[in-house]
Amino acid sequence: MDLNIFDRMESEVRGYIRSFPVIFSKAQGSTLFDQTGREYIDFFAGAGTLNYGHNNPKLKEKLIEYIHSDGVVHGLDMATEAKKHFMETFERVLLKPRGMNYKLQFTGPTGTNAVEAALKLARLVKGRENVVSFTHGFHGVSGGSLATTANSKFRDAAGVGLDNTTFIPYCGYMGDNIDTIEYFERLLEDPSSGLDQPAAVIVETVQGEGGVNVATKRWLLSLEKLCRKYDMLLIVDDIQVGCGRTGSFFSFDKYGISPDIVTLSKSLSGYGLPMSLVLMKPELDIWAPGSHSGTFRGNNLAFVTAAEALDTYWTNDQFEQEIAKKSEMIRKSLDNIVYNYPNEGLSVRGRGMIQGLVAPADSDDLANEIAHKAFEHGLVIETSGANDEVLKLLPALTISEEQLQKGLEIIERSVAEVYKGRGVSARVLKFGGKRG
Amino acid sequence: MDLNIFDRMESEVRGYIRSFPVIFSKAQGSTLFDQTGREYIDFFAGAGTLNYGHNNPKLKEKLIEYIHSDGVVHGLDMATEAKKHFMETFERVLLKPRGMNYKLQFTGPTGTNAVEAALKLARLVKGRENVVSFTHGFHGVSGGSLATTANSKFRDAAGVGLDNTTFIPYCGYMGDNIDTIEYFERLLEDPSSGLDQPAAVIVETVQGEGGVNVATKRWLLSLEKLCRKYDMLLIVDDIQVGCGRTGSFFSFDKYGISPDIVTLSKSLSGYGLPMSLVLMKPELDIWAPGSHSGTFRGNNLAFVTAAEALDTYWTNDQFEQEIAKKSEMIRKSLDNIVYNYPNEGLSVRGRGMIQGLVAPADSDDLANEIAHKAFEHGLVIETSGANDEVLKLLPALTISEEQLQKGLEIIERSVAEVYKGRGVSARVLKFGGKRG
Amino acid sequence: MDLNIFDRMESEVRGYIRSFPVIFSKAQGSTLFDQTGREYIDFFAGAGTLNYGHNNPKLKEKLIEYIHSDGVVHGLDMATEAKKHFMETFERVLLKPRGMNYKLQFTGPTGTNAVEAALKLARLVKGRENVVSFTHGFHGVSGGSLATTANSKFRDAAGVGLDNTTFIPYCGYMGDNIDTIEYFERLLEDPSSGLDQPAAVIVETVQGEGGVNVATKRWLLSLEKLCRKYDMLLIVDDIQVGCGRTGSFFSFDKYGISPDIVTLSKSLSGYGLPMSLVLMKPELDIWAPGSHSGTFRGNNLAFVTAAEALDTYWTNDQFEQEIAKKSEMIRKSLDNIVYNYPNEGLSVRGRGMIQGLVAPADSDDLANEIAHKAFEHGLVIETSGANDEVLKLLPALTISEEQLQKGLEIIERSVAEVYKGRGVSARVLKFGGKRG
Amino acid sequence: MDLNIFDRMESEVRGYIRSFPVIFSKAQGSTLFDQTGREYIDFFAGAGTLNYGHNNPKLKEKLIEYIHSDGVVHGLDMATEAKKHFMETFERVLLKPRGMNYKLQFTGPTGTNAVEAALKLARLVKGRENVVSFTHGFHGVSGGSLATTANSKFRDAAGVGLDNTTFIPYCGYMGDNIDTIEYFERLLEDPSSGLDQPAAVIVETVQGEGGVNVATKRWLLSLEKLCRKYDMLLIVDDIQVGCGRTGSFFSFDKYGISPDIVTLSKSLSGYGLPMSLVLMKPELDIWAPGSHSGTFRGNNLAFVTAAEALDTYWTNDQFEQEIAKKSEMIRKSLDNIVYNYPNEGLSVRGRGMIQGLVAPADSDDLANEIAHKAFEHGLVIETSGANDEVLKLLPALTISEEQLQKGLEIIERSVAEVYKGRGVSARVLKFGGKRG
Repeated sequence: MDLNIFDRMESEVRGYIRSFPVIFSKAQGSTLFDQTGREYIDFFAGAGTLNYGHNNPKLKEKLIEYIHSDGVVHGLDMATEAKKHFMETFERVLLKPRGMNYKLQFTGPTGTNAVEAALKLARLVKGRENVVSFTHGFHGVSGGSLATTANSKFRDAAGVGLDNTTFIPYCGYMGDNIDTIEYFERLLEDPSSGLDQPAAVIVETVQGEGGVNVATKRWLLSLEKLCRKYDMLLIVDDIQVGCGRTGSFFSFDKYGISPDIVTLSKSLSGYGLPMSLVLMKPELDIWAPGSHSGTFRGNNLAFVTAAEALDTYWTNDQFEQEIAKKSEMIRKSLDNIVYNYPNEGLSVRGRGMIQGLVAPADSDDLANEIAHKAFEHGLVIETSGANDEVLKLLPALTISEEQLQKGLEIIERSVAEVYKGRGVSARVLKFGGKRG
Repeated sequence: MDLNIFDRMESEVRGYIRSFPVIFSKAQGSTLFDQTGREYIDFFAGAGTLNYGHNNPKLKEKLIEYIHSDGVVHGLDMATEAKKHFMETFERVLLKPRGMNYKLQFTGPTGTNAVEAALKLARLVKGRENVVSFTHGFHGVSGGSLATTANSKFRDAAGVGLDNTTFIPYCGYMGDNIDTIEYFERLLEDPSSGLDQPAAVIVETVQGEGGVNVATKRWLLSLEKLCRKYDMLLIVDDIQVGCGRTGSFFSFDKYGISPDIVTLSKSLSGYGLPMSLVLMKPELDIWAPGSHSGTFRGNNLAFVTAAEALDTYWTNDQFEQEIAKKSEMIRKSLDNIVYNYPNEGLSVRGRGMIQGLVAPADSDDLANEIAHKAFEHGLVIETSGANDEVLKLLPALTISEEQLQKGLEIIERSVAEVYKGRGVSARVLKFGGKRG
Repeated sequence: MDLNIFDRMESEVRGYIRSFPVIFSKAQGSTLFDQTGREYIDFFAGAGTLNYGHNNPKLKEKLIEYIHSDGVVHGLDMATEAKKHFMETFERVLLKPRGMNYKLQFTGPTGTNAVEAALKLARLVKGRENVVSFTHGFHGVSGGSLATTANSKFRDAAGVGLDNTTFIPYCGYMGDNIDTIEYFERLLEDPSSGLDQPAAVIVETVQGEGGVNVATKRWLLSLEKLCRKYDMLLIVDDIQVGCGRTGSFFSFDKYGISPDIVTLSKSLSGYGLPMSLVLMKPELDIWAPGSHSGTFRGNNLAFVTAAEALDTYWTNDQFEQEIAKKSEMIRKSLDNIVYNYPNEGLSVRGRGMIQGLVAPADSDDLANEIAHKAFEHGLVIETSGANDEVLKLLPALTISEEQLQKGLEIIERSVAEVYKGRGVSARVLKFGGKRG
Repeated sequence: MDLNIFDRMESEVRGYIRSFPVIFSKAQGSTLFDQTGREYIDFFAGAGTLNYGHNNPKLKEKLIEYIHSDGVVHGLDMATEAKKHFMETFERVLLKPRGMNYKLQFTGPTGTNAVEAALKLARLVKGRENVVSFTHGFHGVSGGSLATTANSKFRDAAGVGLDNTTFIPYCGYMGDNIDTIEYFERLLEDPSSGLDQPAAVIVETVQGEGGVNVATKRWLLSLEKLCRKYDMLLIVDDIQVGCGRTGSFFSFDKYGISPDIVTLSKSLSGYGLPMSLVLMKPELDIWAPGSHSGTFRGNNLAFVTAAEALDTYWTNDQFEQEIAKKSEMIRKSLDNIVYNYPNEGLSVRGRGMIQGLVAPADSDDLANEIAHKAFEHGLVIETSGANDEVLKLLPALTISEEQLQKGLEIIERSVAEVYKGRGVSARVLKFGGKRG
C-alpha cells in the first residue's frame, strides 16, 4: 500500500496512521478491510464512536433512504423533519423512561464544541470563571475545552496559557486510602486554599483517554453532593463513555446522580457521523439566541442515524443484557492474563465494554508493544493513559461473541509473545485459556 | 407545521428557526421544501456551506455509492482510500495548477476547529501569544477562536475574559481616507504602543458575518508586506468566502498574496457534510504527532463528496465564468435598488456571489424587515453585520440564472413593499427592472 | 569614585546608575553633590518625585522634629496623629477650596500600588474586566498596572501575557487631523469592534514616561463625556504630573473634568518619601475592609512632610505663579533651540514644568547624546519616549530662576556641542541666547 | 479621641483601625502611646515590620544624622553613599559569613513589588508561565503577586481572574500522614495531571498571614530537592519571617536549603521605613536594564537604618540567643494556656518569635475575642489564618523580657476572661502561672 502521499502532504500532527500504517478501504460491523483485502478485528471503534459497529445495516438503510429522498442534509439550526424526529425519539426513548427533564442544545458536531458550550453556559449561569476538572481528564482540544484537559501533550500545543481551571485529583488518584472528594471539600470550605469558587465541575465517570480510570458510584455521589453544597454545577462529559459504552445509555444511569449538564457526541449518531449534543436542566437555559453558533450544528444525516440507533437498541433492555454479557467476557479474558503473569504488575480496570489492561510504570512501553503485536495479528487496538501504559479495549457494543472471543485471543497471544520476547513465561501457557 | 417540540425542548440558543419558522423536509439545488410542500428559493446556502446547492446530484451519486459499498465512514486520522483520493485530488486540482505548496491538516470538522489549529500552530511557530484580528472579524466561537471574533454577541457569552488578541481596524473601518495598515504599522514600529508583538494576523478577505466588508487587493497586499516585515504569520480564514464564493476557489487567488496558513471548511465537502482543513506552508509544520486531535477529523463521507466537487467544478474555468456572470446579475439588481431609492442611504458591497445590500445605521431594522418580507415571498435570506444592517445574498454558486433572477425579483419586490409600508416611494417603480 | 560594588552585586536591572555613573552623597534643593564634592544641577528631580527640591528645609524641620519626638513611624492603617493631620490638611488645602468630594485610600507607598487599587476598584464597581489605557501610557510595572503600561521594555519583562486591557491611541497619536476619541467612540458604539465593554479608562493628562505627550483640554473633555456616555469610570493617573508639575496641584484643575478616581504618589510626600494615595468618589467606595492591604501603607514620616508641603505651597496661588513664570522660561529656552536649528526636525512639547525637546525619529539617539553631554557639564537630565527621543526637563518646581537659567544654558550648550560634533551649525550661535 | 475624619474620609478598605480604634501618637520600643497618653504593649510590631521595636534609638540616631547632613533621600537607582554602605554591610554581615552568593535587586519598596520582580525573573529565566504557590500562602496583593496569594478575601477583590498559578497543599495541610511533597511530585511526574510545568515555586517557611503554619525542615528539604529534579526555581518569600523573626536572620538559615531567589522587606530597614530587596543567584540575573523599575526603589533613609540594624544586631550571635530565650518564654506561656484548657481544642504553633495560639474551627471567633479583650488590657495583638482562628504573637525581637512577660500575662488573663464569659473554667486558675 502506498502511503507516500500521507507522508508527503499530511501534517506531522497525524497520529493513528502511525500506529496502523495501512490504507483501510471498507468496514462492516467490527471488521475493517485494508486495500489488499486483509481483515482486521476492530477493538478501537473509532475511539468510541462506533458503538454500533461500522456501517450498521439498519442505520445504513435509513441513511441511504434519506439521501435518496433529498432530505435536508445541512440545516444549521433551522427546523427539519429529521431534527424533529430525532428530538421526539430522544425524548421518548431516553428522557421520558428515566424521568429526566433536559433541554437540548445542538452544538457544532464535535465533542469539544459541546464541552465549550457546557462550560460557557455554566460560567454564564454562575457568573464565575473558574471550573474544576480532574487529573487525567480529557475534554477536547479547542481553547475553552483544552483548559480542562489534563494531558500535557495537548496543553503544551496550546501556545498560550490555559486559565480558569483547577485540577483536582480524580477518584483513586491519591491512592486507595485517600478520599479525593474530602480533599476537594477541604479546599472549598477553606477561604484561603487558593481555590477560586468554581462555577462548575466537569467529570467523566470513566476516563477513557486518561487511562480507563473508573470513578466509583460512591465517589460520584459524594461529588454531586459537594456540587449542591457549594453551589457548583455538575457537568458529566459522557462523550466517550455514554451511548451504552458502560452498559446503559448514560454512564451514570445506575448511579443515581442527576447532572446539571451532560455532553454527548461520538457514538450519538451511531454511524460515525459528526454530531454533538448538550443536555441542560431547563432552569439553566439562559442562552441568548444565537450566542453559541456553528455551521454544522444541524448535521441532519446524523439526526437520521441517531434516531434510528435509539429506536433499534434502546427501547428495551435486551441490548444492555448483551453488553453485560460481553463485558463479562472481556473482563474474564483480561483477568486471566493478569493471573497468568502474576509477577508482572499487571492489572485490569474498566466498566462495561471499556476495559484496560494496565501495565506497570516501569514496563518499558509494554502496552504499545502488545498493541503493535496485536495489529500484526489483525487486531486494531490502541493504548491510553498518561504514558500509554493502558491497553484499551473498546470494541463495538454490537460485536458478535465469536468475533469478540477471537479478538480477545489475539490479545492473549500478543501478550504471550511480547512477554516471551522479554523472557517472561506465563504461569499457565494456553491461548484463550480460562483459569480454573 | 407543529414547531412545538422545538419551543419546548430546544435550548433558547436556537437562532435561525426564529427567522424561518417552518419545518423543512426536502431540498434540491437552490430549492427548499417545507413539510407542506411549499417551495423556497435559497439565498442563504447554509451560511455559505452549500455552494454547490442542496443534494447536488453528482456528489449524491458518489456519496450513495460509497455508503453502499461499505466504505470506511469514520476514520479518525487513519489512512483510508477516500482520504487518499481526496488528498490526491486536492493536490492535482488546486495546489499544482497554482504552484502552491502546502501541507494539509485535517482538524475536527468545524470551521472553528480549523481556526483553533491555525492559531495554535502560529503561536507555537513564533513562540508568542498575541495575534491580531480585525474589527468585524468572525472566526468561530470555541475558546481560542472566539478571542479573535469581534462580535460582542458571541464574546459576551464566553463567560470568561478573552485574551491574547488585539483588534485592528479592517480595510475601510476608519473611513476611506485612512489606511488602517498604516495605523497598524505605526503600532508595530512603536515599542510603546501597547501592542504586544503578534505571532500572526488572521483575516477574512471578505467579512461575511461582519457585514460583507470587502478588503481591497491593495490593502491585502499591504497587510502581507507588513506580516513579512514584522515577522508575523498571515492566516487567511477562507472558511466562508473560499471554495469559489468570490469567483475563484481561494478568495485570494487573484490577489497575489501567499498566506502562511489557510483555513477551509463550510463548502469544502460540497454536500453540507462537516469537514475542515488547515493548509500550512511546509516549513511551519512543527506539530508534534497527535497534539491536536479530534474524533471526527476523518469524516470520510465528506472526503468523497469533497473530491468529487473539486473534480466536477474546478478542473477548468467554466465554473468561474458562470460565477462571474451570476455575480454581475446580483450586483446589477442591487445597484438598481439603490438607484431606485436615492434618498434612503442604501449601498451595495460584496465580491463575486457574496453581496450585501447595506441599510443605513438609522434605518430601524430595515434589512431584517426586508428579509422577513422576502421569506413571506418564498425566499430564504439572512442579514449580517454588527447590527444586522446588511441583507446578505449568498445563493448557491450553481443556482440557475432563472432561479437567481426570480430570487432577485423577490428581493426587489420585498424592498419595495417594505418601503411602501414606510411611506417611501421608489424613483422608478418596476419589479425586476433595470436602470438605463 | 569606586562603583565596583554596584557592578559586582547589583542586578543588571539597574538603570539610572548607567546614565549617571557617580556616587551621590548629598543634595540640597536642586543641587546634587557627588562624593568628590562636585555639584550637579538636578533637572530630573527623582523622576518627578522631588517637586519641592531635595531636603526641602521646611519639610526637613518637621521631619526631624517628628522623628525626635518618637512619633509613630510605621502604622499600617492604624489611626495616628500624623495621618489625621495629613487628612485634615488634604481636605482643607486641596479638596474644600475646589469643591471636590473624594474618599482617600492609602495604598502601599508606590505609584503602581495606587494604580493596582484603582483598577481593582473600577472592575469591582462595574463588574467588568477590560480597561482602556493609551498608547505610550505608563502606569507602573506590577502585574495589574503593567497590563496598562504600553512600553514593551516593561511588558516583555512580565514573563506572562498581559490581559484585560485595550490600548487606544492617545491624543495626537494618529496625527493632528484624527480625533482619537471619535475612533474610540466608533469602537464603543460598534458591537462588533472587538472592544469588550471597559470598566474604566486610565489616562495621564501629560504622558511623562511616554515622551511628554500632552493631551489637550478638548480631548480630555471629550474623553470624560465618552466615559459618562458608555458607563466607564475615568481614572486620572496624576502620579507623575500631579502635585503641581503642570502648574496647579492637580494636572486637570484647569480642565473642568471630574475624574472618578485619581491616583497620586511621587511628589505627594514632598520629601522623596514613599507614599501613595487613591482618591475615589464616595459612591464608588465599595471596598470590603482589608481587601487591599500593604505593609507600608501607613508611612507616617511621609504624612508629616506631605501635610507640611501642602500647607507651605498650596494655601494660596503664589507658588502657582512662580511655576508659571519658570515654565515660561523653560519653554522659551527650548523654543530658541528649535529656532536655532531649523532644519533638524526638533520640536518642543510639554505643560508647566514638564517640557520635552523632541528629536526626530532618525536623529540617531540625539536626545541621549545631549543628556550625556549635559551631565558632563554638570546637569542631571533624562530622556523619555518610546525610543528615548525626548530630552525631558523636569526640574524641581522650587528651583531658583538663577539655577534654572543655568541649567537651561547647559542644555543649550550641550545641544550646540552635540550638533557641532555632527557637523550641524546653529542659525545663530550664542549660548543662552534669545531669539528676536 | 476623635476618629470622625477617618470614618468620613478614609475608604472602607481600612482595616486595623477597626481593631484598634484609638489614635496613636508616639511609640518607643515595644510601647505605643495613644493621644490620651495611654500605653499599649505592642505584640503586633507592624505586622512583622518592627522587629527592632519602634524608633530604635541606635537607628534613630543614624537616621537623624543622615537627614541633618542633607544626605540624598530619594535616589531611584542612582548610586549613593548610603546605598553603597548598605550593600557593603549586607555583604559583610550576612552573605560572606554564610558563604552565600547572591546579587541584589532593589525593587519598589513594598513586599509585593519584590515578589512581582521575583516571579517575573523566574518566568523569564525558565520561559514558562506557571508558578506553584501553597494553600494559605500570602505574597501580596498587586496583580502578579495576588495570583500567588491564597486568601479569597484578597483574590475576590482582584476584579479579574488570577492566572498562571497552581496551589499545592502546604506542609501538613492534608493531615500528618500525607506528605504533600509526594503529592506534588506525583503531579509533576504525571504528564496528564493537568499541572503545567512550573517556572518556580514560591514558599514561606512559616506562613504568617496564613495562620502561623510552620513548614518542617524535612518538608523544605524535600521541596528543594523536587525543585532541582523538575527544573523549578525555589523562591523563598522571607518578607514576614525573615530578618530574625524565626531566630536567625534568614528563616531558612538552619535548614540547609539554598533558595534561588529570596525576597526581603518589612523589617529589612529596621525602622519601619519602606524597603524591599530581591536576592538572586548570579546566574539568574538576566534582567534587561531598567526593565523592572519603581520610583521609590532608592529609599536612602531605609538604606541608612537597614545598614545600622545589620551592624547592631547581626555581627555576632548574641541577638540570636536573646531571641531564642524569648521564643522559649512565649512558647511556654502558650503551652500553659493549652494545658489549662485541656478540653477546648487549643493548640500552639510557630517558630522563634512568631507563635500562634490556635482556636478550633468551631470556637465562634474565639481568637478575635481574645485579641479584643487583650486590647482592652493594653495589648496590641492581631489574629491571622483563613478564618482569623489564630491569635498571632509577633512582638519586637528587641522587647525586654519584662515587657514580654507582661504581654504574655495579658494574653493569659484575656483568655481566662473570655473563657469565663463563655462558662469555661481553667484546669488551674492562676494568672501568668506555669505548669508543673
